[in-house]
Amino acid sequence: MSATKLIYFPLKGVGEPIRWLLKYGNIEYEEILIEFADWPKVKPTTPFGQIPLYEENGKKINESIAISRYLGKKLNLAGENDWENLEIDAIVDTINDLRLKLKKYGYEKDEKIKEQIKGPLFNEILPYYMEKIEKLAEANNGYLAINKLTWADFYFIGVLDYFNYMAEMDILENRPVLQKLRENVTNIPAIKEWIAVRPDTWYM
Amino acid sequence: MSATKLIYFPLKGVGEPIRWLLKYGNIEYEEILIEFADWPKVKPTTPFGQIPLYEENGKKINESIAISRYLGKKLNLAGENDWENLEIDAIVDTINDLRLKLKKYGYEKDEKIKEQIKGPLFNEILPYYMEKIEKLAEANNGYLAINKLTWADFYFIGVLDYFNYMAEMDILENRPVLQKLRENVTNIPAIKEWIAVRPDTWYM
Repeated sequence: MSATKLIYFPLKGVGEPIRWLLKYGNIEYEEILIEFADWPKVKPTTPFGQIPLYEENGKKINESIAISRYLGKKLNLAGENDWENLEIDAIVDTINDLRLKLKKYGYEKDEKIKEQIKGPLFNEILPYYMEKIEKLAEANNGYLAINKLTWADFYFIGVLDYFNYMAEMDILENRPVLQKLRENVTNIPAIKEWIAVRPDTWYM
Repeated sequence: MSATKLIYFPLKGVGEPIRWLLKYGNIEYEEILIEFADWPKVKPTTPFGQIPLYEENGKKINESIAISRYLGKKLNLAGENDWENLEIDAIVDTINDLRLKLKKYGYEKDEKIKEQIKGPLFNEILPYYMEKIEKLAEANNGYLAINKLTWADFYFIGVLDYFNYMAEMDILENRPVLQKLRENVTNIPAIKEWIAVRPDTWYM
């Protein structure tokens, strides 16, 4: 039995960056997949009714960004001083802001409301964020922060398929610097290997 | 001219925890208040169209939680190891999840939709979170994490007036442990002093 566990749905979602960091660090862990049918039964046993959960030596913790930061530090993918970490943290939370905006669209069931959200999202909000993130990467040697590979890059590229699922398009379209970043991160041997064996049924 | 600046609206909001940390640390800073009428003019000059912004030695950064973490570390209000910091980060992001749920209700203009959100929010979501946060504080010596005062407590108690404004009630009602935490944090001399002089017009 492994002391490290990741508990999440059989999906990429916001659990995927945690998987990438674990694979990158060659950390042995047990992947516990919660089937959707079992979720109502599992939910009350979680700290705040949400997964992913990360477990280490019997202690469970929630929040995908917090867990990714923790693993990022362990794996020397963090900053070298507090300000550098602030820059990493700020872009990750900014990406999370974008996630919430995409979610409003991607999860909307009412076609009429979805249509109303569509215009502002794709004509204003998404280009606004993506242009700024592209420029940030341009200014940071192709990475999201501090001129080098950090857990922020793992986070962003790790959640990208999920973002693209919600947006129903590749949000890196016409963003060559970020496309290059995706290429770089997904070509890291441990990540490349994982993507090759990851189940195709994990549609988002 | 001060090298440290905080740029925010004349409101408590998510800028207030940053102010509390700056006051607590006795850090000299310039408070730049953006009047609402000026916001459309200022917005395009910000990194991601949002405030608060924190500035140090000419470098500006966004995201209130990231800024609070940075100041928390500086002021010895962080954990002593990575796992402790993970526990702090997880509860702060959980509180932020609750903020987004309250925001949906608090900012809804359509009375009919607001009424639909009201039931689930006040009968299920809010009690669910508050019961768990209360228990967490009970298990942590009256604090949100690691049995002692951290920047998580500054964050939560700092945004509480804003949360209560959105909820149109005191969300600490019937939560004695968290009420005691609020008392403790707001009685810290630097915070108490600030609250006494803070403009009454900062309604949320």
